[in-house]
Amino acid sequence: MSAERALVAETEEFVRREVLPIEDEHDGDVEAAGGEDLRRELQAKAAAAGLLSPHGPVDCGGLGLGMVDRAPVFEAAGRGLFGPMALNINAPDEGNIHLLDHVATPSQRDRFLRPLVAGTVRSAFAMTEPAPGAGADPSMLTTRATRVDGGWVVNGHKWFITGADGAGFFIVMARTSGEPGAAGGATMLLAPADTPGVEVVRHIGTVDRSMLGGHCEMRFTDVFVPDEDVLGGVDEGFRYAQVRLGPARMTHVMRWSGAARRAHEVAVGHVAGREAFGGRLADLGMMQQLIADNEIDLAATRALLLAACRELDDGGRASEATSIAKTFAAEALHRVVDRATQMCGGLGVSRDLPVARIAREIRPFRIYDGPSEVHRWSIAKRAVRRIAGGGR
Amino acid sequence: MSAERALVAETEEFVRREVLPIEDEHDGDVEAAGGEDLRRELQAKAAAAGLLSPHGPVDCGGLGLGMVDRAPVFEAAGRGLFGPMALNINAPDEGNIHLLDHVATPSQRDRFLRPLVAGTVRSAFAMTEPAPGAGADPSMLTTRATRVDGGWVVNGHKWFITGADGAGFFIVMARTSGEPGAAGGATMLLAPADTPGVEVVRHIGTVDRSMLGGHCEMRFTDVFVPDEDVLGGVDEGFRYAQVRLGPARMTHVMRWSGAARRAHEVAVGHVAGREAFGGRLADLGMMQQLIADNEIDLAATRALLLAACRELDDGGRASEATSIAKTFAAEALHRVVDRATQMCGGLGVSRDLPVARIAREIRPFRIYDGPSEVHRWSIAKRAVRRIAGGGR
Amino acid sequence: MSAERALVAETEEFVRREVLPIEDEHDGDVEAAGGEDLRRELQAKAAAAGLLSPHGPVDCGGLGLGMVDRAPVFEAAGRGLFGPMALNINAPDEGNIHLLDHVATPSQRDRFLRPLVAGTVRSAFAMTEPAPGAGADPSMLTTRATRVDGGWVVNGHKWFITGADGAGFFIVMARTSGEPGAAGGATMLLAPADTPGVEVVRHIGTVDRSMLGGHCEMRFTDVFVPDEDVLGGVDEGFRYAQVRLGPARMTHVMRWSGAARRAHEVAVGHVAGREAFGGRLADLGMMQQLIADNEIDLAATRALLLAACRELDDGGRASEATSIAKTFAAEALHRVVDRATQMCGGLGVSRDLPVARIAREIRPFRIYDGPSEVHRWSIAKRAVRRIAGGGR
Amino acid sequence: MSAERALVAETEEFVRREVLPIEDEHDGDVEAAGGEDLRRELQAKAAAAGLLSPHGPVDCGGLGLGMVDRAPVFEAAGRGLFGPMALNINAPDEGNIHLLDHVATPSQRDRFLRPLVAGTVRSAFAMTEPAPGAGADPSMLTTRATRVDGGWVVNGHKWFITGADGAGFFIVMARTSGEPGAAGGATMLLAPADTPGVEVVRHIGTVDRSMLGGHCEMRFTDVFVPDEDVLGGVDEGFRYAQVRLGPARMTHVMRWSGAARRAHEVAVGHVAGREAFGGRLADLGMMQQLIADNEIDLAATRALLLAACRELDDGGRASEATSIAKTFAAEALHRVVDRATQMCGGLGVSRDLPVARIAREIRPFRIYDGPSEVHRWSIAKRAVRRIAGGGR
Repeated sequence: MSAERALVAETEEFVRREVLPIEDEHDGDVEAAGGEDLRRELQAKAAAAGLLSPHGPVDCGGLGLGMVDRAPVFEAAGRGLFGPMALNINAPDEGNIHLLDHVATPSQRDRFLRPLVAGTVRSAFAMTEPAPGAGADPSMLTTRATRVDGGWVVNGHKWFITGADGAGFFIVMARTSGEPGAAGGATMLLAPADTPGVEVVRHIGTVDRSMLGGHCEMRFTDVFVPDEDVLGGVDEGFRYAQVRLGPARMTHVMRWSGAARRAHEVAVGHVAGREAFGGRLADLGMMQQLIADNEIDLAATRALLLAACRELDDGGRASEATSIAKTFAAEALHRVVDRATQMCGGLGVSRDLPVARIAREIRPFRIYDGPSEVHRWSIAKRAVRRIAGGGR
Repeated sequence: MSAERALVAETEEFVRREVLPIEDEHDGDVEAAGGEDLRRELQAKAAAAGLLSPHGPVDCGGLGLGMVDRAPVFEAAGRGLFGPMALNINAPDEGNIHLLDHVATPSQRDRFLRPLVAGTVRSAFAMTEPAPGAGADPSMLTTRATRVDGGWVVNGHKWFITGADGAGFFIVMARTSGEPGAAGGATMLLAPADTPGVEVVRHIGTVDRSMLGGHCEMRFTDVFVPDEDVLGGVDEGFRYAQVRLGPARMTHVMRWSGAARRAHEVAVGHVAGREAFGGRLADLGMMQQLIADNEIDLAATRALLLAACRELDDGGRASEATSIAKTFAAEALHRVVDRATQMCGGLGVSRDLPVARIAREIRPFRIYDGPSEVHRWSIAKRAVRRIAGGGR
Repeated sequence: MSAERALVAETEEFVRREVLPIEDEHDGDVEAAGGEDLRRELQAKAAAAGLLSPHGPVDCGGLGLGMVDRAPVFEAAGRGLFGPMALNINAPDEGNIHLLDHVATPSQRDRFLRPLVAGTVRSAFAMTEPAPGAGADPSMLTTRATRVDGGWVVNGHKWFITGADGAGFFIVMARTSGEPGAAGGATMLLAPADTPGVEVVRHIGTVDRSMLGGHCEMRFTDVFVPDEDVLGGVDEGFRYAQVRLGPARMTHVMRWSGAARRAHEVAVGHVAGREAFGGRLADLGMMQQLIADNEIDLAATRALLLAACRELDDGGRASEATSIAKTFAAEALHRVVDRATQMCGGLGVSRDLPVARIAREIRPFRIYDGPSEVHRWSIAKRAVRRIAGGGR
Repeated sequence: MSAERALVAETEEFVRREVLPIEDEHDGDVEAAGGEDLRRELQAKAAAAGLLSPHGPVDCGGLGLGMVDRAPVFEAAGRGLFGPMALNINAPDEGNIHLLDHVATPSQRDRFLRPLVAGTVRSAFAMTEPAPGAGADPSMLTTRATRVDGGWVVNGHKWFITGADGAGFFIVMARTSGEPGAAGGATMLLAPADTPGVEVVRHIGTVDRSMLGGHCEMRFTDVFVPDEDVLGGVDEGFRYAQVRLGPARMTHVMRWSGAARRAHEVAVGHVAGREAFGGRLADLGMMQQLIADNEIDLAATRALLLAACRELDDGGRASEATSIAKTFAAEALHRVVDRATQMCGGLGVSRDLPVARIAREIRPFRIYDGPSEVHRWSIAKRAVRRIAGGGR
């Protein structure tokens, strides 16, 4: 326990010292988030401090932390928008590490997982497609992998592929049987970025800009994937996506909790240092309400997060717990940052404080990894089945 | 663990079998909540089933459950509005048991705690006063205990004294030094109900009506309390009130979680069984949103509750965690029941379903035990001090 | 303008003097709301004061106010829970007056409308049915009127028929063609209460109890209605229901605005008269937030109400405007009363102040006359059609 | 009425044809919002179309519309982020036009107002100061004007001065008597931008970027203002600020209503054109809820806006009505755009649709022109005084 406390403190201190001073310089570069050089520089420092890849399997050089233990570490890293990049715990690499750790063959483990944990390469997870393909409803997957001699040929159109620009390899979700609308029949395929036919079309300019490699539109044109680079079983893709999903949702919550908590603390510091209407802003009842609501939202987010992490550490799928925690957190943390903005007044919407930037970065969290509406739909369906039985 | 699961299941079954069928008959009696006879009858059944006083100390005949372990048991009991009465875990007895267990002398333990755990007597906690006395701000305490030979003489005016009518004894909070507005100087005194000068003036008719003994206005006129009936040290009353407070808040959350969950389940059952607009109500998106929001609120309440209970079981005061959990729960559970009402349509505001009654019973929870506004005020003050230092 | 102002002031004063002192005595009688004798007594006083039936057509003895002009008068009356009864502007009579004024034949006008405006009789509107009949979805109407010689014979099961117990006649909505699920084919029929086969089965006990005649379950068994008592054209019932609907929604908003405003004012008076935490409660920021939010909700309700009333006075159907105003108002006024409860603390949930009672009475408004969910569904469908064209 | 409808339609068409195609090109330029050349080009087109300065006094070349009549015109212009600039109805010029029209001497009218209405010059209103100066609490004004021979010399530090960069002249609020914290003693002074000592220090980078001239930090160092350029009476500044305030708040609401409505319409078009989960997104209940809530918020905003505009047109100060309308609108329109974002999914946070940009631009509206918290404080104080009398 004490070792874990220390790790959290060191991570927080590392972010304060090495990351925060740098990230303000890179607010403007829409598509680079500091760029590969900065990533390598920061990760080298993190490695030197013994903080790199706290979630990576130990045999690959990571610290091997479980979900509950990584929660405060990831949160500490998330205080800096570039903190997760510095520690190599950013999406989508972090989810891909988890997935590969569970599914990769020994050879795949060597060629794909090991360099990922070491930070020598980045990766992306190519699943989402433009309408009418796989979006909130993954069963509409249209990208196809066709059987050829010794492997598969992939053709498809993807977008919102996080980290695609500059990724060393892709985990591509492609249909290997059935038609769009049918859930079954998807397979995961590993494709190095230099495979002929792999193309990053453009960065979709999104309001968040701290993700190295952006969120990109991609095309896969006659991309050949040899059998040895099929990840797990053929037609097992949707099941593996579920394996990846729960923890990936929770690590998002961890990171954004850190960002939101930082915005909250900046705002509390602001109102504690200002006078108006005859007193300290922090002592005005309406400010106290904003502060208290933030504390409540942060506490509830953490409690739901840890409850879901415990379930995951116990070996459960935790679909319901992670869905609830993700939905609540995305909305609660958004509220926290919005209240922080309001507490800071004009400065809250300016670059003079980090709050406005955090507000912009966190907005998509209610949409990425399943919009709140889709999560609610699935939470409700489960509840009706559990309580009323039968049903659809 | 298995034993605890079994206890929860038995409690839930007991409430379903013995309590729910009875409580509908007693919706009308504003001031009796079924009356003493019903209480004794139900508690006898609970004792026979080995379910009585799960929180009571073992040496007094209770089951000795800690906070985390009692949470699901109390929740199961709370599914019935008379369930907590049946199990002897109602406020204020349950909080008084906790307090006496920590503070009572051996003699007091015998005379006051033991019969309370056995259910042979009820008690009340006489603290709240009408304006300008001790309300949300306890420091305004005006009831006084004056030193006399061999004891104290108490004079004061109290109200909203839960369970007062029919209580066997009172724990009276009285000022023994200082003036109203000064926090220090309160003492707790034990006064049997038949002590001369103890008077229950009236039931304050409140919207909740399931509390045996009501919420009463009281007068204490020249009530003599011998030294041996002083509970704990003189002038230590506010500190003991804190000891009582945290757990008492959490057991409220447990019980009301049960009631809210029942309303939710009734409502889900309702919409799962109705057709309109060409389909099952439960499959309409707006119903799914209500259902999902309820699931989220119930899960977050439980997560915050258990986090606070863990702190209490670890020996902490948990002032902040219980304050946050109470505030969130009171509002969240209210929303849950309100959505359940909406899901049931016209039946939701009728006596044909239990939802309307639960809605009425749960409303005061946002006010009793500290209104949400007072909790927010204290949460904010702590946060400012923690984050910005100094301050008031 | 000045005459209208005076009428509002007189109405408010009448309610304060004649109604408020009486209504507290009748909180307990679940099914009577004071009873017929009280109604006649209060209406006689209102008639003597020239305040009876401000909305009734002038030729029938009413004051003939349009929608915009009646808004502040109804609001003033609504300050008392029995105020609308005293002025003869309660639902469902008030909506029935509007409907009869538009559709009744001269003979029907004499026999049904004139006594209704004079207050010598009450009426009810029998449309809603238990599942699977006409509820939120009126097209599911199952009550049937079968053609016989010289008229129709009605058979059906109704519930939540407001004011049914003691009503002098009923406007019955019955299917005259088509099958449940088909919108067309409903007809309105006038049936005096003493017609053989008209039966009030029971009061459905609802949380609101200020409606004389309650909300009842009814059976119509072989009820004969002669042709001269068909209201308007055969198979035109749904269209007439729309005529009735818009204004009826708005007068609900008017009356409940009065009740909510009274609760708000009581609460403001409460916090202006209490001291705690070193100052007047009304000067604490969190109280100011509750007060300001109430003011905003009340102002927005009024603005939406008057906008819809202007549309109605201009001869429009105003389906969208009244649907929006009703939905917003039902939720906003509920919030107003809920905040008022919170502002009053323990007294807010007691009978010592009128706030708790108003809270109970206003709750069903989000369900009666179309639950918020059904209104939102129809608002959205209209919006999609208007903005995106086509659609369903 | 018909002429006004036509003006609205022409404005909407003008924005669609001339403004929307251009503004996307200028999303990137943080500080220029298209620049002066674009402004002149668009305003020339608007003038040619007879649409320039609809609010300007007729004798200066404007169309002379009152508040109620200008509401739909400004809203139509606000559909484009550069629309208000194109029509010369942007803050702060539009408020300054109103102010000068009421207070300017004939000579000031010629030299300052006339060119402003014609669009040959822009202006700014220099009031807000960094802490501890005049922010949410204007009485803390620290900028001073000292009496000298023939005029005044101004020294002070200002920020968040909208449109400052490139403005032709400034209306400077300076203290001419009393000390910071005292409300009295402010005077408005007209200072051409080329007056020695007037300095635009920097653009404060804010999240909104469509305001030509930005939000700037400024210094006034020994700026001489001759007596003829004092605007209105000495020490009357706060009173004039009130004259400017009400209408300026409402025109903000008008413009942002247009932007929010456009976001809403884009989102409805989006969900009407997508299929998922077996149907059109627009027909899913949760989408319908978002759509309906948007319609309700837009309708309530418009109703409150027009109510306040009627009061202003009738000659009232309308402090309360404009404060309520501004506070409600700023929050409601923010919700509208946020829901629109959610409806558009990933595209909602991208540059592929205008929604994300509108979301960014509208955020500061809850802070500029008085944060919601300050408005609530003043609304509550008025309400307590009105309802409970006395008070502070």
